[in-house]
Amino acid sequence: MAEPLFQRLALIGIGLIGSSVARIARERGDIAAEVVANARSQKTLDRVVELGVADRVEPDPRRAVAGADCVMLCAPVGAYAAIAEAIAPHLAPGAILTDVGSTKQSVIRDVGPLVPEGVHFVPAHPVAGTEYSGPDAGFTTLFQGRWTLLTPPPGTDEAAVAAIETLWQRCGSMVERMDPAHHDRVMAIVSHMPHLIAFTICGTAYDLAGETKAEVLQFAASGFRDFTRIAASDPVMWRDVFLNNREALLEMLARFTEDAQAMARAVRWGDGAYIEQQVKRGRKIRQSLIDLKQA
Amino acid sequence: MAEPLFQRLALIGIGLIGSSVARIARERGDIAAEVVANARSQKTLDRVVELGVADRVEPDPRRAVAGADCVMLCAPVGAYAAIAEAIAPHLAPGAILTDVGSTKQSVIRDVGPLVPEGVHFVPAHPVAGTEYSGPDAGFTTLFQGRWTLLTPPPGTDEAAVAAIETLWQRCGSMVERMDPAHHDRVMAIVSHMPHLIAFTICGTAYDLAGETKAEVLQFAASGFRDFTRIAASDPVMWRDVFLNNREALLEMLARFTEDAQAMARAVRWGDGAYIEQQVKRGRKIRQSLIDLKQA
Repeated sequence: MAEPLFQRLALIGIGLIGSSVARIARERGDIAAEVVANARSQKTLDRVVELGVADRVEPDPRRAVAGADCVMLCAPVGAYAAIAEAIAPHLAPGAILTDVGSTKQSVIRDVGPLVPEGVHFVPAHPVAGTEYSGPDAGFTTLFQGRWTLLTPPPGTDEAAVAAIETLWQRCGSMVERMDPAHHDRVMAIVSHMPHLIAFTICGTAYDLAGETKAEVLQFAASGFRDFTRIAASDPVMWRDVFLNNREALLEMLARFTEDAQAMARAVRWGDGAYIEQQVKRGRKIRQSLIDLKQA
Repeated sequence: MAEPLFQRLALIGIGLIGSSVARIARERGDIAAEVVANARSQKTLDRVVELGVADRVEPDPRRAVAGADCVMLCAPVGAYAAIAEAIAPHLAPGAILTDVGSTKQSVIRDVGPLVPEGVHFVPAHPVAGTEYSGPDAGFTTLFQGRWTLLTPPPGTDEAAVAAIETLWQRCGSMVERMDPAHHDRVMAIVSHMPHLIAFTICGTAYDLAGETKAEVLQFAASGFRDFTRIAASDPVMWRDVFLNNREALLEMLARFTEDAQAMARAVRWGDGAYIEQQVKRGRKIRQSLIDLKQA
């Protein structure tokens, strides 16, 4: 077995992503010699102990990061600024501070200025997830064959970036570096906007009055079922993602709304050729995904 | 084994739904003594012969329905009027004419006036499907545990309605009767609007320029993957559904657009409480579906 990459990995937040990393680290042994888990609630920490996915739990984030050579923020991105403020004075010299957040410009904006001299800041985003959350939701194959995107600010220590790259490769992930603004645009269309729309459709259905609403539930066809699956995701995580990728999300939503209005117009005026063409493009994208083995 | 419900079942169109019914009928033996399949293209008919899912194929719809005591339209709903016009003079006295279309007011409007005296017209909609189409796509468990909605016009022969009810029960389906206008509203929100939106999102992504577009495909996260799955459905079928449920679809799309704009406004102005509340409602609907065993 390879030497552990880190002596102590501190996970700040231990939900779906954090507990998956913890499980993999414990299983492989070559990621960290020790895994320390921190969470805001005692209930979560108790559950982590029961699950046995970390070597140690620590309710105080400052103590969790003390002596850790890698600190990974796995909390909702809206909590990052407060966490960074609390832990910054306690980060070990030479430590790597990384994260798993779905937005990257906001993380650089909120955390970057608080990173002490001598600590290496390597923002990362494993593009993987399910609609489940909490420490029970994690599993060791979550990242297998999926991408992790690294968005290190210019001038970041190359050895630190390489270490985080290796960490994610050992988690089963493929790794690529990306400009943070570009990352946020791509994720806005690929993930954030589809989620916003799925949440919205469920709300629209929920608001239908009386009889129709009951039957919406009773007769949910496959289209609607898939939307509710997406919409079952963690509310706080997604609230934070939307608020922290505002510009790109609003742009993609505006583009989508224009396109949806064009479809509505085609339906109203009976333009079958236009509708058919739009549906065919969906198939084409689907085929490209299958070709790329992402479907 | 129970007696076959029908002596000869003629399927006009033999894609995902039609070929599933054919497979079930052949497997069970108590639905029809003979299954005749008609399709517009010789290629489809040849494939049906290869698959062996029908007793007989018949390229001429008029000859396919001759002597059949049950005729089931399984073509896209936009083709119904022309089919009904062609077959009406050839329907056997006492036969039942039924269908599987996703819109029901349009079917009653297009087919109803052409049904000859003495033929019983029982519109039906099995609420089941996958994103695959064609005679290869069918399978015998497609309708298991799913609903089939019957929308017989007032005064329809009760024995004919009961026979179609039994047919779908033997296909594994639960059956309910519903007013056609109500059916179309419920399906607009549960199925048609979600599909329209999935097709649209794929188009919006497809239109992104250059680098972003390539990476949309490369980094498709789970949200987008689910949308492309829906969007891989049959273009002609969905074109016809949209055009034939225009009013209800446009109403649901207008409601959804208002709700999406409210979400966009909350994102723009940083109203986290509103966003969180909307996401939580999605979860609630999801939980209701799980409780109803539809998820």
